[in-house]
Amino acid sequence: MFFERVAIIGVGLIGGSFALALKERQLCGQAVGAGRSVASLEEARARGAIDAIERDAAAAASGADLVLVAAPVAQFEAIFLAIAPRLKPECLVMDAGSTKRDVVEAARRGLGSRLAQFVPSHPIAGAEKSGAAAASAALFQGKRVVLTPLPESAPGILDKAAAAWGACGARVSRMTAEEHDAVFAAVSHLPHLLAFALVHDIASRPEAAQLFGYAAGGFRDFTRIASSHPEMWRDICTANRDRLLQELARFDTEMGRIRRMLAQGDAEALEKLFTDARAARERWLSGEYE
Amino acid sequence: MFFERVAIIGVGLIGGSFALALKERQLCGQAVGAGRSVASLEEARARGAIDAIERDAAAAASGADLVLVAAPVAQFEAIFLAIAPRLKPECLVMDAGSTKRDVVEAARRGLGSRLAQFVPSHPIAGAEKSGAAAASAALFQGKRVVLTPLPESAPGILDKAAAAWGACGARVSRMTAEEHDAVFAAVSHLPHLLAFALVHDIASRPEAAQLFGYAAGGFRDFTRIASSHPEMWRDICTANRDRLLQELARFDTEMGRIRRMLAQGDAEALEKLFTDARAARERWLSGEYE
Repeated sequence: MFFERVAIIGVGLIGGSFALALKERQLCGQAVGAGRSVASLEEARARGAIDAIERDAAAAASGADLVLVAAPVAQFEAIFLAIAPRLKPECLVMDAGSTKRDVVEAARRGLGSRLAQFVPSHPIAGAEKSGAAAASAALFQGKRVVLTPLPESAPGILDKAAAAWGACGARVSRMTAEEHDAVFAAVSHLPHLLAFALVHDIASRPEAAQLFGYAAGGFRDFTRIASSHPEMWRDICTANRDRLLQELARFDTEMGRIRRMLAQGDAEALEKLFTDARAARERWLSGEYE
Repeated sequence: MFFERVAIIGVGLIGGSFALALKERQLCGQAVGAGRSVASLEEARARGAIDAIERDAAAAASGADLVLVAAPVAQFEAIFLAIAPRLKPECLVMDAGSTKRDVVEAARRGLGSRLAQFVPSHPIAGAEKSGAAAASAALFQGKRVVLTPLPESAPGILDKAAAAWGACGARVSRMTAEEHDAVFAAVSHLPHLLAFALVHDIASRPEAAQLFGYAAGGFRDFTRIASSHPEMWRDICTANRDRLLQELARFDTEMGRIRRMLAQGDAEALEKLFTDARAARERWLSGEYE
């Protein structure tokens, strides 16, 4: 496996790290970048993630053997439309979006006859830091990458995609786009929403300063994901809103159960719930679900 | 300030660290311990936190100049009843409980005429690790300790309590027990309940293994407090349940607002909420509310 020309559309943390990882393993001849922000592109070039800056996505994709679309998901359709006419027939196209059903739809609308070359991908890595300045060849080491193949996918293209992410150190797995969006609504999108909600609610009270003044380490960790990027999370929440609404309804039922335990002073039921939760988390931390 | 004899009732992380901190600053002649678990007491003695093990709380408190009750809050009334007849008139009594209205009630019932010697205290430190093995003289360094004085408090006793915690490196502040329980319901008890609930809900699904398999760093931090001690959190939740139910109702209103934004596809309102939450958290992290 060797990609003579790699195009990164959107050179932030994910795009920059992917390019650095391929380069470190000498799997890539030249890496070029395109994107909205000239400053980001310059930073990525200074860090050695890309060798050249192209004027737009279409120019970057021209002649490329691998295109990674790592821009905000809301821009995908326009990017796909722009690159489709310039793609070589054997070029592998991947994305790095956090939701997959909307990405597949954008690809169907934008890539047209090139759809078979596209492998929807979600690398589960990094979020707190962002930008090419934080990029690292080791970002994907031991992290998961989920591929959500299309029925149209060209023979061999999935293995090529899996090999590219695997070469970056990632653990690659496959599921449908529907399954992907259901899983991440539960273990990622809902917790983000709860963390944003808690901080927002506290900040909106007259006594906010006092409350924050006594918030400690538990609060800091619980709300870490409330420092995530608002634009990115707006797009994730709206793209996956049907699944997220289902998760919210489910969580509401769970909280109703706990509210009744509290209202009835059912200390035994509360202790059992806490004990079960702690035990499940310890099993998870011990690697039982890897 | 010098305490010839210090009695620690319940020698875990908090009790052990308090004794170690006083010793390191040479503010204490002898430290003795009492508690349910012989193994913990032996561990505390091996670590140098206590010099001797007494057979029970009453024996430990006899002749003491300072008594710290750092056992589970559910045991407080029995401990107060046992030590009250043995307290020297000038002995300072403090606790380390995470709720304060119930502790004050237990003290009123248990300490009787000795109530004026008692200063309710809540050190905001440590929770994840527990036990004397994790104790450290530096545990309270830079951490907050909240005192919730009683109208009956003896003149000078509050300053003595503040000086003792201050000597351990803590930032000491005062509020009423009512105010304390309201503040911590919002910034500590509610987040704990949400974290326990999320892990419990995911663990109870048929597809739990798959869900945990894709949970990543954001989930790990968000749920860290779901590894807290079930018995301790059972007691906190039941002791503070009226305030916690108020916080749950409030959070439910906030989540209802967010659910409507999602259902209506109001991306702009979601992005504003996320932006406001992130900005508030950054202000908090920058120390604006210290």
